[in-house]
Amino acid sequence: MSKHAPKSTDEFDYISWIRSELPPASPNLEVGPGDDCAIIRVERDREALKIDTTIEDKHFILADKGKKIAPTLGPGATPEEVGRKAITRCLSDMAAMGATPSAALVSVTLPTGASVALREKLFIGIAKTCATYGVTLAGGDTQGWDGPLSITVAMTGMMDGVRPALRAGAAPGDVVAITGSLGGSILGKHLRFEPRIAEGRFLADKGVSAMIDISDGLSGDLTRICEESGMRFAVGADLAAEAVPVSKSARRLAKLEGKGASRALHHALHDGEDFELLFIVKPNRWKKIVQEWPFDVPIRALGMMRPLRKGEPLVRILKKGEPEALEVMSWVHKL
Amino acid sequence: MSKHAPKSTDEFDYISWIRSELPPASPNLEVGPGDDCAIIRVERDREALKIDTTIEDKHFILADKGKKIAPTLGPGATPEEVGRKAITRCLSDMAAMGATPSAALVSVTLPTGASVALREKLFIGIAKTCATYGVTLAGGDTQGWDGPLSITVAMTGMMDGVRPALRAGAAPGDVVAITGSLGGSILGKHLRFEPRIAEGRFLADKGVSAMIDISDGLSGDLTRICEESGMRFAVGADLAAEAVPVSKSARRLAKLEGKGASRALHHALHDGEDFELLFIVKPNRWKKIVQEWPFDVPIRALGMMRPLRKGEPLVRILKKGEPEALEVMSWVHKL
Repeated sequence: MSKHAPKSTDEFDYISWIRSELPPASPNLEVGPGDDCAIIRVERDREALKIDTTIEDKHFILADKGKKIAPTLGPGATPEEVGRKAITRCLSDMAAMGATPSAALVSVTLPTGASVALREKLFIGIAKTCATYGVTLAGGDTQGWDGPLSITVAMTGMMDGVRPALRAGAAPGDVVAITGSLGGSILGKHLRFEPRIAEGRFLADKGVSAMIDISDGLSGDLTRICEESGMRFAVGADLAAEAVPVSKSARRLAKLEGKGASRALHHALHDGEDFELLFIVKPNRWKKIVQEWPFDVPIRALGMMRPLRKGEPLVRILKKGEPEALEVMSWVHKL
Repeated sequence: MSKHAPKSTDEFDYISWIRSELPPASPNLEVGPGDDCAIIRVERDREALKIDTTIEDKHFILADKGKKIAPTLGPGATPEEVGRKAITRCLSDMAAMGATPSAALVSVTLPTGASVALREKLFIGIAKTCATYGVTLAGGDTQGWDGPLSITVAMTGMMDGVRPALRAGAAPGDVVAITGSLGGSILGKHLRFEPRIAEGRFLADKGVSAMIDISDGLSGDLTRICEESGMRFAVGADLAAEAVPVSKSARRLAKLEGKGASRALHHALHDGEDFELLFIVKPNRWKKIVQEWPFDVPIRALGMMRPLRKGEPLVRILKKGEPEALEVMSWVHKL
């Protein structure tokens, strides 16, 4: 990235600067930012499409605003981290389908009077993240308004012959498994998580029954899999409490709250934005996946799908073998 | 559209309601709204990609808020019209490339406490407009916040073998032409304009040198064509004042302002959001286009591209044969 910067705060200057600073694009990009549309060459394939909006004081708190942020809310975000998160949230959804991300479109709405440093660092965060993950930044839109910073990213991805892993498809007897560990992402991981792109593609290719990324929390996202999978045959899930991978951050957050191990488990079960992959898979395929797993991030079985009997809760947690209903606590960034 | 409505204001209820009300999708849509990504089948082709954000009190004023709106700002928008505009703005960009729109993704950010009626009518405006123009509503995202209503639409389109019409490509001697008439769109057309999709495809197929849709105003958008086309050989444009198609709305707006014909011309030259197609074309191709033009909307030549000599303004307007510089007055919704 060069050091020169636009001197005025004019929208068109910002766009020119962005065009001059764009990372190398895919050779498939015929027309990049600056025309009415971007043009990209595609092959006969299945294409994945995603849109997601990332909003100030909802998905991040800016660090440099001089606001005092409570320790349990983690550190504030730099503008680069905000740009990174806006892109990686979409990348994680691509991963959860087994898609390989290809192009991104970004619409940035800047607060009136936003500094040149803010908008440049935000763009650099977006552009670097696209470059890191091989995504072509194909186009965008920028405006000002009297409101918080808001970034909407739309992304395309290609399946390259892999069958998409849906939320529906889980069946009784399937193993419930997960990448990585969970809880306390607010202490930093929600800004710096690694989207599990290669892992998602590997899992989709191995024929998982269902897959989702953990954005709203294990309890909520597993419930969604049960609901979506239950259209033909009602299914529920049982988790073993001792198998839930409680992250160090979950423990640290519980400690900051003056609480112990059961609070840490609570964070692992209900916190969101870990962006790990939750996947459901037939037992024989699970064995094969464990044997062939080529990635650094660990995977772990933490439960089993079961037929859902009338009146039973969708998701249960077994503590010392005793099942109890696992309530969904939708994760809310308490800002 | 059925009459039932969600009773709570829960985001997931809204999403379920949306899923139950979706218009028929293209058979190419394998996975629609509700999973991590949408999945659509594509053929080997050039794909057009666009993103655009439509913001309350910037691109529209809601009619039912009891605000008094000055007559020169036109009527307020209904929620359906807001949904329509969010989609048609992207459709117009597709038209300006010659692309055939295929799928849309919509991210809606609702003001906290937005009524069920508002969000439903907004969605109905979005869904109906997609259905009207054969666009598959493939996915979306919805959130609430303490801010104005904001809708970001991302769209894909297919070139189907047609060469994309860029902003760059205009050469000296080319005819400057336009569809329809210009000015005063704020009196209503900016909410109800017809995106020139079939016309754009026809023009791209005929091999226009350059094309853009009029969103920022004729002066600004023609300047942009000169700038983008001038990378190899500097070009300017001359317009004949008497050839500029001044709309009835431009005349009505001038009248509301207590002014006459020259003010109406001013509106035609500088107002934005007419979403007509401005295209630049070789004289022999222009003749062929006029002969074969199969559409209702009229087309009209209003000037000529010229070599740009040092110190000359990019765009000039000839009044009784005398050239004067045409200043760019970027159109701003004065709200």
